[in-house]
Amino acid sequence: MHKLSKIFQPSLIIPKNAIVKNQDITSKSQRLMLEQGLMRQAGNGTFYILPLLQRSVQKAIDLVDHHMQHFAGAEKLTLPILTSADLWRKSGRLETAGGELMSTTDRHGKRQILGPTHEESITALLAAISPVSYRQFPLRLYQISTKFRDEMKPRFGLMRAKEFLMKDLYTFDVGLAEARQTYEVVNEAYRRLFEAVGVPFVKVRGDTGVMGGSTSHEYHFPSEVGEDQLVCCSVCGMGCNQEMFDGEKACERCNNSNIGRQAGIEVGHAFILEDKYSKALGAMFLNQNGKPEALQMGCYGIGITRLIAAGVEVLSSEKEIRWPRALAPFKVCLIPPKKGSKEESLVEPWLHRLEDEVSKLSSVGSEVVVDDRTSLTIGKRLLDAKKTGYPVVVVIGPKAADEGAELFEVHNQTDETQKLLGFSETVKEIERSCS
Amino acid sequence: MHKLSKIFQPSLIIPKNAIVKNQDITSKSQRLMLEQGLMRQAGNGTFYILPLLQRSVQKAIDLVDHHMQHFAGAEKLTLPILTSADLWRKSGRLETAGGELMSTTDRHGKRQILGPTHEESITALLAAISPVSYRQFPLRLYQISTKFRDEMKPRFGLMRAKEFLMKDLYTFDVGLAEARQTYEVVNEAYRRLFEAVGVPFVKVRGDTGVMGGSTSHEYHFPSEVGEDQLVCCSVCGMGCNQEMFDGEKACERCNNSNIGRQAGIEVGHAFILEDKYSKALGAMFLNQNGKPEALQMGCYGIGITRLIAAGVEVLSSEKEIRWPRALAPFKVCLIPPKKGSKEESLVEPWLHRLEDEVSKLSSVGSEVVVDDRTSLTIGKRLLDAKKTGYPVVVVIGPKAADEGAELFEVHNQTDETQKLLGFSETVKEIERSCS
Repeated sequence: MHKLSKIFQPSLIIPKNAIVKNQDITSKSQRLMLEQGLMRQAGNGTFYILPLLQRSVQKAIDLVDHHMQHFAGAEKLTLPILTSADLWRKSGRLETAGGELMSTTDRHGKRQILGPTHEESITALLAAISPVSYRQFPLRLYQISTKFRDEMKPRFGLMRAKEFLMKDLYTFDVGLAEARQTYEVVNEAYRRLFEAVGVPFVKVRGDTGVMGGSTSHEYHFPSEVGEDQLVCCSVCGMGCNQEMFDGEKACERCNNSNIGRQAGIEVGHAFILEDKYSKALGAMFLNQNGKPEALQMGCYGIGITRLIAAGVEVLSSEKEIRWPRALAPFKVCLIPPKKGSKEESLVEPWLHRLEDEVSKLSSVGSEVVVDDRTSLTIGKRLLDAKKTGYPVVVVIGPKAADEGAELFEVHNQTDETQKLLGFSETVKEIERSCS
Repeated sequence: MHKLSKIFQPSLIIPKNAIVKNQDITSKSQRLMLEQGLMRQAGNGTFYILPLLQRSVQKAIDLVDHHMQHFAGAEKLTLPILTSADLWRKSGRLETAGGELMSTTDRHGKRQILGPTHEESITALLAAISPVSYRQFPLRLYQISTKFRDEMKPRFGLMRAKEFLMKDLYTFDVGLAEARQTYEVVNEAYRRLFEAVGVPFVKVRGDTGVMGGSTSHEYHFPSEVGEDQLVCCSVCGMGCNQEMFDGEKACERCNNSNIGRQAGIEVGHAFILEDKYSKALGAMFLNQNGKPEALQMGCYGIGITRLIAAGVEVLSSEKEIRWPRALAPFKVCLIPPKKGSKEESLVEPWLHRLEDEVSKLSSVGSEVVVDDRTSLTIGKRLLDAKKTGYPVVVVIGPKAADEGAELFEVHNQTDETQKLLGFSETVKEIERSCS
């Protein structure tokens, strides 16, 4: 059983009128996560991910692993963070990516890019084994690792940081038709993944920009904080990034003229890269006639830390965190009575029985935390639990003892209800809320 | 069920007399892992971790997580890779760590160290919340992340790379006695962990060196490739790193004069740092009298990628990989008949039944891979399986069919036995070997 007293969660008290000190706090999710001791700023655009948030990060990693392996048919590997600048020169991106690239030069004078993305690196790996038979493809390889971007002005906390966790998948096919098929498969895996995360999202056409290639789609959480402007048809749902919008007044697909605009936070993207990188770096395969040909590539990214922060941004109120369904650090928080209160000893066995029963639920398991900081009042801990945003908070307090019966105050934070329930009803309500 | 045909494992053929090309291949584990498509070199001291080895890395991470959380009572977090050079200046290590530090300078001219270890970073975090009550301690915080060291001459593959995966744990206590108690707890967790890994190890006294502090122990896998010289008593087991040995002829603990020397590969270390970093960076607590005092620190590292490479180095023959018990990519490899062979259709149902039964074993689960590359002969695939080092290899081939009965060739690579067994004996033998 996890106990809150054992979890390092240093809250940050931000005075309401501390305008100068708050200049770095540019989003609600950032402020709430700082206040609740989920993260701390380390430098300009760099953050400590503290233990409660680390659990959320681990859940996001597990969820992405599952969807990549089971629905996108992808294999996991690790590409080094340090990538030779020579490769970036060959692909032409040393110039186009420009100032956002961070680099280090080793003792032998070799310049290494701190990878913001790894098209060059993975293509060089494929080039090193080239050319292999067309039978070896499709190939879908992904990693989850730290990426770097020298933001001029990092902002919105984990949403636009200099150092962030990202999933990047690269696919290799023998032809453009096959690459498009792969594109469908991966986008379908993305749809499932974002539905599992539990935050409303939209998929829109995007610009291929510096990445290159022909086709691109972006996944966004609609939010006022979002830096992208999206243009979406209210009838068929077709949409695109504003920068792709040609200024026409009607939907290009269904001709409906009711076109809406909204801001969005980009949490995922997909590109068909064609042979831009494979040609430049020599990643070839042998076709059915034994002739070498350049591979057709795709790349697909999801910002892991951004996904969490964006989800919290969209779902939370100004005062309380609300987590995406799949990413809460714990699903259930139990609050026992204050130390020395008259009900303390009476309800203790009920608490233990509830802990036991709830932990046995397959939908809950080890996702229970007890707020055992019993030197604090129930009221203080309840406020804190609501602010941290555990989906279900159960108070085992005076109300239970007053009635002389086993009664629990069950706060469901997702639908914002509050019920006073007996033991077995409480277990059922928790099971219902968590599954 | 995992199929080998779906796993990206590009083998590297290294000509035996390619002396010039092989100059970078400086250890057996490196050569075998390159040949078997488990990794590839990316740059000087940087490597691609390919899917089979990635599974091994994931197992090592899970094993370390388990031992840190359950036996060392530690919490997981993430510290940023980029650490302000100012912090390193304050601790005095910007000079002492010298040329091995890699760094990058951002657009605002701020120099950031690519953390080789994170004493400065975590102490700055504790300083940011200082001073908190003595009641908040002990505090034990760890991460598993990529570390960087600008090796003049990277060598031995993953054992001495420029970029590597490391677990680093930092502990904070209110007094030296408490820090020593923490030291005992963590060292005991290390003992359990290394026993679970399954490679013979020794624990010896080490030098505190540039790290600072008073007490240090190292964990080594004895091996000729090891770069450290260890001095160990053959009676009581007491040992120390050669650099700590005062040149006496007898054991300092039991006075035995039979002192042996051996080379070792360092896979873990433990330090009591005292208040070197907490004083320099201002990480304080409030003692029982409400007065601020510097925290007493410990730090504890385990190289994750090095642990795997060192284990493979110690256990393997020149020709075949042998994995540490806990870290094999798969526990069982099944080899069905060649495509088009006369026994192919006869034994197919047996293969499926075996896959099913073995997957149901709690000691095996999803740890089975089928070598479905049935265009290759059984002999070729058996050689390959032995070289890759799966602990158990089961051949479902002509011998089974010749007898007309369900007979399986079970190769146990750990004790190098080979048996011809019926169905249920095969399942039992696999269960025995894997648990």
